[in-house]
Amino acid sequence: MATEHLFFVKLKPTPQGSPDFETTRAALLQSFMDKIPSEYRLSQKLLANPPNDVSGIPASCGILSAEEREITETYDAVGLAEAIANRKFTALAVVMAYLKRSIIAHQLTCCLTQWLADDAIEQAKRLDNYMVENGKTIGPLHGVPISIKDHIPIAGTFSSQGCLSSMVKDDEDCQMVAILRRMGAVFYCKTNQPQTLMHLETALIAMRGSVLGIGTDIGGSIRAPSAFCGIYGFKPTSCVLPMEGFLKTPFAAELNVLCSTGPMCLSMRDMDMFMGLMSDTKPYLTDPSLVPIPWTGLQTSFGRRLKVGIIRNDGFIEPQPPVKRAVSWVHDLLADSKYSNAWRKIQRFYWPDGGSLTKSSILASGEPLHPLSEWTWKDAEPAGMQTAETLIHYRRTRDDFRCAFAQDWQKQDVDVVIGPAFVGPACAHDTAFYWTYTSLYNLVDYPAVVIPTQLRVQPGEQYGFSYVPLSESCQHVKQLWESSEFEAAPLALQVVGRRYHDSELFGALAILKDILGLR
Amino acid sequence: MATEHLFFVKLKPTPQGSPDFETTRAALLQSFMDKIPSEYRLSQKLLANPPNDVSGIPASCGILSAEEREITETYDAVGLAEAIANRKFTALAVVMAYLKRSIIAHQLTCCLTQWLADDAIEQAKRLDNYMVENGKTIGPLHGVPISIKDHIPIAGTFSSQGCLSSMVKDDEDCQMVAILRRMGAVFYCKTNQPQTLMHLETALIAMRGSVLGIGTDIGGSIRAPSAFCGIYGFKPTSCVLPMEGFLKTPFAAELNVLCSTGPMCLSMRDMDMFMGLMSDTKPYLTDPSLVPIPWTGLQTSFGRRLKVGIIRNDGFIEPQPPVKRAVSWVHDLLADSKYSNAWRKIQRFYWPDGGSLTKSSILASGEPLHPLSEWTWKDAEPAGMQTAETLIHYRRTRDDFRCAFAQDWQKQDVDVVIGPAFVGPACAHDTAFYWTYTSLYNLVDYPAVVIPTQLRVQPGEQYGFSYVPLSESCQHVKQLWESSEFEAAPLALQVVGRRYHDSELFGALAILKDILGLR
Repeated sequence: MATEHLFFVKLKPTPQGSPDFETTRAALLQSFMDKIPSEYRLSQKLLANPPNDVSGIPASCGILSAEEREITETYDAVGLAEAIANRKFTALAVVMAYLKRSIIAHQLTCCLTQWLADDAIEQAKRLDNYMVENGKTIGPLHGVPISIKDHIPIAGTFSSQGCLSSMVKDDEDCQMVAILRRMGAVFYCKTNQPQTLMHLETALIAMRGSVLGIGTDIGGSIRAPSAFCGIYGFKPTSCVLPMEGFLKTPFAAELNVLCSTGPMCLSMRDMDMFMGLMSDTKPYLTDPSLVPIPWTGLQTSFGRRLKVGIIRNDGFIEPQPPVKRAVSWVHDLLADSKYSNAWRKIQRFYWPDGGSLTKSSILASGEPLHPLSEWTWKDAEPAGMQTAETLIHYRRTRDDFRCAFAQDWQKQDVDVVIGPAFVGPACAHDTAFYWTYTSLYNLVDYPAVVIPTQLRVQPGEQYGFSYVPLSESCQHVKQLWESSEFEAAPLALQVVGRRYHDSELFGALAILKDILGLR
Repeated sequence: MATEHLFFVKLKPTPQGSPDFETTRAALLQSFMDKIPSEYRLSQKLLANPPNDVSGIPASCGILSAEEREITETYDAVGLAEAIANRKFTALAVVMAYLKRSIIAHQLTCCLTQWLADDAIEQAKRLDNYMVENGKTIGPLHGVPISIKDHIPIAGTFSSQGCLSSMVKDDEDCQMVAILRRMGAVFYCKTNQPQTLMHLETALIAMRGSVLGIGTDIGGSIRAPSAFCGIYGFKPTSCVLPMEGFLKTPFAAELNVLCSTGPMCLSMRDMDMFMGLMSDTKPYLTDPSLVPIPWTGLQTSFGRRLKVGIIRNDGFIEPQPPVKRAVSWVHDLLADSKYSNAWRKIQRFYWPDGGSLTKSSILASGEPLHPLSEWTWKDAEPAGMQTAETLIHYRRTRDDFRCAFAQDWQKQDVDVVIGPAFVGPACAHDTAFYWTYTSLYNLVDYPAVVIPTQLRVQPGEQYGFSYVPLSESCQHVKQLWESSEFEAAPLALQVVGRRYHDSELFGALAILKDILGLR
């Protein structure tokens, strides 16, 4: 079993499940490993003793050619689509580069669940043939590789809802994947997600193993990993992008808080292109849950000066020192949301079943519960399964909160608000306890973009002498900071707009672009 | 007690509650009656033996002056606002005319719950003073009287959710009323609603006792009464118009199907004005549940020929003869929705509590259950109180149905669909058993307008010899037709657009206006 454990970097032990479960897990890992040609494997020596920062390894490991490095390091998705359309690269060359780089990234960060080499090569060849035969691209994403979160169905691959017992093979693309496929996108991998889908971890794009990834976010699952890794991530307002078919079994949390899907990528124009392309297909004509607001994105004009609010803390948990510094870097305090009880509310709202449906689905196959899974539903578990009678009051509480929040925003008279994306620059594995800075915007359902700054964690950054904890959780976050090591980690910020004002949020980003040095 | 019963037309006995309840009911009716000056009372002779069609009585009873008849019979809301702005009438003259006509209508149809004479006169005088002092109107609805459904709060009046125990005095206007008040509207009465709010009855506007009324519709409560009475009624897509504060206690049905609010009135341009004015106030800035789609209404252009679908029956209940004739009058069959199980679905969705919350609220004060109340929850009652686990599956079933419906609509390739608004021209009191033709568009949440035709029920209209019942309910509807008397009743149709395509629906109505002789 030692070889399989050296197949990827592994810094913490995994909880053990039943013997049957462990046999199945080992077989799945082995079968994944068997697919990886030996020439794409990193040395066991490196995997056994990785450096603290592994982001340089794909470039230095010698597996990628100069052209493959150029493809994966020079272009964002817009640039790559142009380069393929202009015949600078074939779709095959591009997908080979990303297949290789993604499997290198996986060995270092365990970011994939499936690696679809054969099928991706087949897709790319068909696209290259199409270009030869027709003298034009098949669509605006011709040959652009897109990575897809594991629970989102791609025909002929597996999906799961964050535990083994929910794993199924999909016969059909979901609506989003079908739209992207018609535009010429190539699907070459599925990306990892935590048990219960609620731990806020993993990212492939920072390693340049993907140029554009599709994620989902009901508490921060697009934004927190994007912030941790210094990439762009966008959680739109719910019901803006198509999610038909995303979950086989409905998610009880969505009785209270709707999930959003959105892009993770390397530039604002990639997010903007993605949103514009999706909007152009009028997905609301076949999925009437979607709101037909046309996308104007970065072209959205305010016709007046932009009004920006700044959030220093959420009244509940003080961000760790470098995040505070990143906020100060932007500007003075204009808004303080004072919604410290939002976290308690949303923790209850996520689990109207007391966690029991997810828990029993995990345990069904002998899979062990991860500590963060139990953490997420611990406050809801004692209340147990809710009824229509209590749920309608949850709904009223939620809507009253949303109105109060909107009225406060209106009083502050700002177009967008800039603040932290997370309590710290990132979280160590298995310590994503507090998502307050992201989940607030799921609770109110406001669109939010995570942007990288040029700042990084400095050596020796500490909480100030005058620090007074805002709460017990705030004190816990300080302990987490003091027991971790994040030197040189990227620092990100979150920019938030009003509900359904997704295009206005991008209009604001266009104004902030040069000031904040965004890409 | 005999005098009080002759206070309004009463054709059917009312179920009896507990002695305490009956005492309270009698006191409430007496206190209402005491407010009505004797010169506005109809003769006991007339009330004891009313004609089959009472719609001519307000004009012939001698209570209204010539000017009051002109005000109430000549103008729609747009025209009335213009006439007041042009100083043809004072706000006081207008509200007096509507106060008088509404209380005449009430004696004939029991359409009011409160008659706010003193307060309305006070409002009108203030508006007239404003006009004198400022030389201009206070807003676009300056002096226009608006009738408001009982459960919608107006400061200083009572509201209830359809039973005595839910009656409370409101200290504040809800958001919609506050917006209308700022525009200069005058509130002079609150309109009746059935027990549970789910019986589809009563209307004041057909008697010209109101020029513009605000209703709510979760199964047809705007559209069915409008159709019965030959007026215009619009149920927008949910979350288009503000409803903050409309219900003191949350309504369990809204876990599955959202309620809409909308106007009932005498012309398309009144609906269009109302929607445009509400949209201009950007109510989504303080109520973020609202979708910020700008209103273009009757000005909405398609830039091509309109595509219209026609529905002859819903595959479940054949409309009664005159309704069938009204549909034929429009055109050939283009669409047949085949969603006969939608009715069974929505009956379950309305009562995720098995009806128990509403039932216990009714019974709390000793109030008797009306037969139609028990009818509405009879299919849901055996299943009892639902849990988060079952509700999330209801939600999935609803969303799958919505997608299938949208995809079918898309395949038919139509902009709007025209069909029946109800199984018959109207229902006799206490027989609104089947709302299939309206509730379908609550289930899918599509905007729908009821339009009057110039057709009326003809003498001797019968089901054809070739009639084959589509279902047992269909047979029941035939029996209801054969045991009722609707001669000369107005006939209406329903025009439906895609979800959130409320303005496009009005763009289609603008095209149909002259063809169908709409006002």
